[in-house]
Parts: sequence; structure tokens; C-alpha cells
Amino acid sequence: MSAKLAVLGHGVVGSGVVELFYKNKKNIENRAGKELDIKYILDLRDFPDSPYQEKFTKNFEDILNDDEVTTVAECMGGVEPAFTFVKACLEKGKSVATSNKELVAEKGDILLAAAKEHSCNFFFEASVGGAIPIIRPLHKCLAANDITKVAGILNGTSNFILTKMYSENMQFADALKLAQELGYAEKNPAADIEGHDACRKICIISSLVYGKHVYPKNVYTKGISDLQLCDIDAAEVLGYAVKVIASVQELENGYILPAVMPMLVPFDNIISDVKNVFNAVMVYGNGIDKVMLYGRGAGKLPTASAVLGDIINCVQHYHTVNSLTWESAENNDFVAPIEKFSSKWYFRTASENNSPEGSYTSENGTSFVTAEELTFTQAQEKAKEINALAYLPVLE
Amino acid sequence: MSAKLAVLGHGVVGSGVVELFYKNKKNIENRAGKELDIKYILDLRDFPDSPYQEKFTKNFEDILNDDEVTTVAECMGGVEPAFTFVKACLEKGKSVATSNKELVAEKGDILLAAAKEHSCNFFFEASVGGAIPIIRPLHKCLAANDITKVAGILNGTSNFILTKMYSENMQFADALKLAQELGYAEKNPAADIEGHDACRKICIISSLVYGKHVYPKNVYTKGISDLQLCDIDAAEVLGYAVKVIASVQELENGYILPAVMPMLVPFDNIISDVKNVFNAVMVYGNGIDKVMLYGRGAGKLPTASAVLGDIINCVQHYHTVNSLTWESAENNDFVAPIEKFSSKWYFRTASENNSPEGSYTSENGTSFVTAEELTFTQAQEKAKEINALAYLPVLE
Repeated sequence: MSAKLAVLGHGVVGSGVVELFYKNKKNIENRAGKELDIKYILDLRDFPDSPYQEKFTKNFEDILNDDEVTTVAECMGGVEPAFTFVKACLEKGKSVATSNKELVAEKGDILLAAAKEHSCNFFFEASVGGAIPIIRPLHKCLAANDITKVAGILNGTSNFILTKMYSENMQFADALKLAQELGYAEKNPAADIEGHDACRKICIISSLVYGKHVYPKNVYTKGISDLQLCDIDAAEVLGYAVKVIASVQELENGYILPAVMPMLVPFDNIISDVKNVFNAVMVYGNGIDKVMLYGRGAGKLPTASAVLGDIINCVQHYHTVNSLTWESAENNDFVAPIEKFSSKWYFRTASENNSPEGSYTSENGTSFVTAEELTFTQAQEKAKEINALAYLPVLE
Repeated sequence: MSAKLAVLGHGVVGSGVVELFYKNKKNIENRAGKELDIKYILDLRDFPDSPYQEKFTKNFEDILNDDEVTTVAECMGGVEPAFTFVKACLEKGKSVATSNKELVAEKGDILLAAAKEHSCNFFFEASVGGAIPIIRPLHKCLAANDITKVAGILNGTSNFILTKMYSENMQFADALKLAQELGYAEKNPAADIEGHDACRKICIISSLVYGKHVYPKNVYTKGISDLQLCDIDAAEVLGYAVKVIASVQELENGYILPAVMPMLVPFDNIISDVKNVFNAVMVYGNGIDKVMLYGRGAGKLPTASAVLGDIINCVQHYHTVNSLTWESAENNDFVAPIEKFSSKWYFRTASENNSPEGSYTSENGTSFVTAEELTFTQAQEKAKEINALAYLPVLE
């Protein structure tokens, strides 16, 4: 038995898929239980130095119309033309594994339905958390749980910046510059530092866990560009690390509340120990209590590893995996507004204020954590009332 | 479509399986894609207060000979009669999910072969790390990697004791007593504190990752009963936490080296932050770099969650999952002896000794970590040479 593969896109992830495939071919074939080979690599650019010259094509139709190709890795990124290509593959019964979080967050419901209709699979382990097993654990290993909350660090760039601010007292701008120099941040870093990248990932997790498509536009998203070093310092004294937390929780009456924002993570929560470019996701359920999955959330080979893990699963499964699915939901009326979010909060006020119990006063002002739970709206009001210079929620 | 289940054993885990199944039945059926019910519970004892009175049987034949029962959860523990019962079920084509680490560590190869021969499945996610997804990530999500090492904390009882010694300066005997009072340790705590429990789990991981059955009797196993509080204190000053690490690494020429022993874990390794009864497994591979899986390694509902996750997979799969397997290997000649183990080492000597650079001297002696790598044998010799009172390897 053998199977022929195609890889769409030869950028960082796509070239990583080809590299790791040939590096570990024997092991991959052992796990898959059959011989495998890459027959096509699709890219509009030329790669004259590639040892796989004869596999390159610029014409997607070559792949679509070759019945020998049963399985496709999509690593182009962006919604189009990825969406058109992936949908066409699925409609021909070719299973697809993708690393493209934008595609899954915007069009996952449509592609999952197409896969089901044509008895093949649409897998996307690589789209959330790079190398970290998240998607399969959520719908397979932890499937017997009612999952009450998922919360984690889903963007390595912003976590790297926060780690440098925390451990080396760097200002935000300097830490961002270092991240850019090291290749962790793009020239235009907005998607990472404003939280949009993490937002797409928590949308995918929310859709899978709660069964209905959640769109990025409906998720409150706040990044780290206005975080002050003094808040990170004060948080440390008060017993917390500042982390960008992408989370989704189950509320009453079928509502869910996804959000992305900087939060205070208590030092006794192991999420506070996730440093540099590493990502981690904590899953809370009524059987497991909590389980954390940790690793590299991006990068060439870590992401390629997840794509190839899915490819192995594609060639093992001849029918659609029915636990990996969710419904369309044009109208996201089950997504609660951020005003319903409730938490303890951290406030920083000008130093002339009275210092509440447990507070920390420095030249930058008085910082403290409220003991009482406040909704997002109440926290906004209190911040106004006490002239807070900054305020952040605490991760429970 | 519907499927009937049987649960063998109604102790802590078995009763947890029944409890969690009925608590989350709707969700479980959604993920499984069909209706499910428990038809039998096997136990020799009477449970007059159970609401599932009519499901109890004392006769295994009732289950074996009922063709309606397609899937069985084995939660009896111990090798016999579990082995006989599980093998008989598999030979009838009934898939089995087990939480029984002793069974898998001693007889996994035979049971996997029986499952394959009869086109059903033998799953054991619950046998390693309780609620933590480990087995499926190893052969599914991370399948595209050459895995070079696995290292982790696989016994919650000993980790709880070490945490208390570290954070509350408790002596070993007092921490053990507390663990017993809290129900974390048995009256006879040998399996936990001497490392045998962790040994069985690393045998299962080693067998799955490297493809040949590894027997507990061939694995070097050392527990924590002779650890001194002063070594834990000195390790902290030198930048390390003391943890019982169950590990397996790939050596050259097809050899592997599994072992269980207390080790020094640097504070910048997140394994050092795994506290109390929590377990964690770090997997190192040539694509992923490293991935850690963390959660509750034992307990009624966490373990039941893993059993039920496997049950859902049993009823989804109509053919044997061919990536979850390993060969028999009566003669474990690919398992390298502990003498080949190589590491940096920690030594404690009587305080009158000369103090090497970077050492810490207290009333308990001088403690230091060697910069050079020493084999197990060389470390033994050096310890003798310098009259070391204690010595432990460092986890890289």
C-alpha cells in the first residue's frame, strides 16, 4: 500500500513539512502503516536550489486532477486562495491537513462540512499552538469531559516580549525590537502584539469545544502595546506574572465567553512559568480537573511536525472523524459580550491615593488587587472612580 | 446506532468510570457519534446502595458471551485475573480500554497482538499519567518525530512528598505520613516511594516509542526513601529542584536507556515547577524540540476521564489502530545497562572538604554540581573517592 501527498506552499512551514518528511520518512511510514511520498509541491516561486525540483508545480489543477494524490498539506496561509484550493480538494475526496489558523478561524465550518459530505478529513492540529497537541486531545483524549474553560498563552511573540520585560526589565519598545531582530516578530507586528493571532486560535478552540463556529470579529481582543513596565514590576511584588491569556469559558444558559487580554497569573499557577516563545493551554473539565499542554507554538519544524502528524492520520482514516466538527453559526448570539466577564482585578493609581490592604507602593503609584469579583463594566467604573492609571484582570 | 459497554471492577477507578459516564453521557455520545450505555458492571463485592444495581454481575462469562457488549473498560488492577479477562474479550473481538499499568507493562505486547488478530483495539491512555493525554499524543500527534528522549514526573505521591520537603521543610517521614493521611499514599507505600509505579509507566512509554516491549525488571529504579532534606535545601541554593524523574533516551546503535531516579531539575526547566500530586511528561523530538503534557496523574475522575476517552475511541474505530503497537521482546538486549547513563552530577561531601567553585557550604557539608559529564560508573567512583555523603544526576 502507498499514498501520494501534495504540499501547497513552500514558505517557512511548507518547506519544513518537506524537510521533516524526508528526514523522518521511515518512522512516519511505520506509524502510518504504509509507504508515503510527496508527489507535488505547489508554489508560484522558483526554487532552483531545491533537491525536489521535479516535484514543483505552479498549477493547482495538476494536484486536483491527479487521483493518485489522496492527501494534501495546505501551508500557504491567508484565506484566499487557500480556501478555494482546500475546498476543491475536499470535494474531490482528498483529505487536507492545514497549518492555516486564519483559514480555520474564518471558514472551518464550511470546510468541515465539505469533508464530511465527501467522506474525507479536514485536520488542523498545526493551526493552534504549533507543535503542541491541542486539537486532538480536545476532541479525543478529553472527550469524556464537560469542558468548563480553556485558558492559555497562544502567541509566542508577545510572551517573549513579556518575558524580557519581566526578567530583564526591558521597556516594551526595546523588547519588541529584540523580538524583531531574532525573527520572532514581523516588521509589522500588529497581529502578534495586538492579540489578533491569539484571537484566531481561541476561536478555533471555542468552536471545537462548544460545537458552533465562533468568529474572530465577535471576540474581545486586547494586546500588550500599552503595558507599562511598572505594572509588570508591581504584579511581581503582588505575586503575579503578566501574561496575554486567550481564554473561553462556559457561562450559564449555553453562553460562552471567549476573550484575549493581558491578565495577572498567580505564581502558583504553572501558566506563570511558561516563558519566552513557548505556548501553553490549560483545559479545565469536570473529570480531569485541569490538564496543560506546553511547547513551541510556532517555527518551521515544530509546525511541520503537527502538519505531518495530521497527514499520518489522514492516510490512516478512510472515513470522516466525526468528533472533529462544529456547526455553522452565522449569528454568534451564544457568544456573551465582554461586559459579562467577571474576575478579581489589579488597579494602579497615582501614589498620593490611600493604600488598601495588600497593596504595593512605589514611585509609579499604588498597585493592588481587589479581593471582590467585579464584572468588566464594574471594573471600568471603579477605574474611573479611583482614577486608575492601569487595570488588569486576574486569571483564577 | 448504539453500543453497549461493560466495566470490569468497581473500585476507585471503575466506579469513577460509571459516575463520569452518566454525568457526561450526552457529551460522550455526541463525541462518539452514537448512543452508548453501560450494560454490566463486574465485581465480586455487593454494592447495595448503588443506583445501578441491575447492572452488577459476579460472573465474567455474562459479559464475555453477550454479543451486544462490544466495548469493555478494565479497571480491576493487577495482572490476574485482568490479563485472562482482557485477552478473552479481545479474542471475541471486543475492544478494551484499561487503566491497569501493571497489566500493560507486563503483558502489553500479547494483548496488542490479540487485538490486532481479532480486529479490535486495546487502549491504555489511563495507565500512564491519569487524566493527562500521553499515549495518544505519542503515537498520533507527535508521530512524525524521531523521539530522542521522554522524561517526566510519573508518580504523584512521591512528587507530593518532595514538594512538602521543599516548600515546608518537612522531613521525609513526616511528609509521607501527611500523604497517607490525605489518601495520596497507601499504608504500604513501597510502589510509590521506591519508584516501581513510575517504572511501570516509563516501561509503557518506552515500549510505545521504541517499538519493543520493555519489562520493569530490566529498568534501573531508585526511589526517594533515603533522600535527605539537606540535599533538597542545597539543591535549591544551587538552582535546582529535586524530582523523581522517569526517563527513557535513545542511545547509539539502537539501544535505549530507561530509568527512574531522583534527579536535580534546573529551575529554568518547567518540570521543576510541577508540584504536589501533579504529573508531567516532557517529550523531546527532532521536529517539536520539546512538548510537555501536564495534569493529575491519578485519582478517581481524572483516571476515569482517560478510560472514557478511550472508550469513545473504541466505539469510533472498527479496525485496529495500527500506530498503537509494539513487538514482543523476551530478551531485552536493546535496553542499555544503567552504567551507560551519563550526566552532570550533584555531590555532597563532609564540610571539612575543599570547596569547588560554585559550591554551597552549610552545616551539612559542601554541595556542588560537576561541570563535566560523568557516567553512572564514574560518578560512583568519584563519590567514593571524595567520600560523598550523597550524589544525584542533573536532568539536562
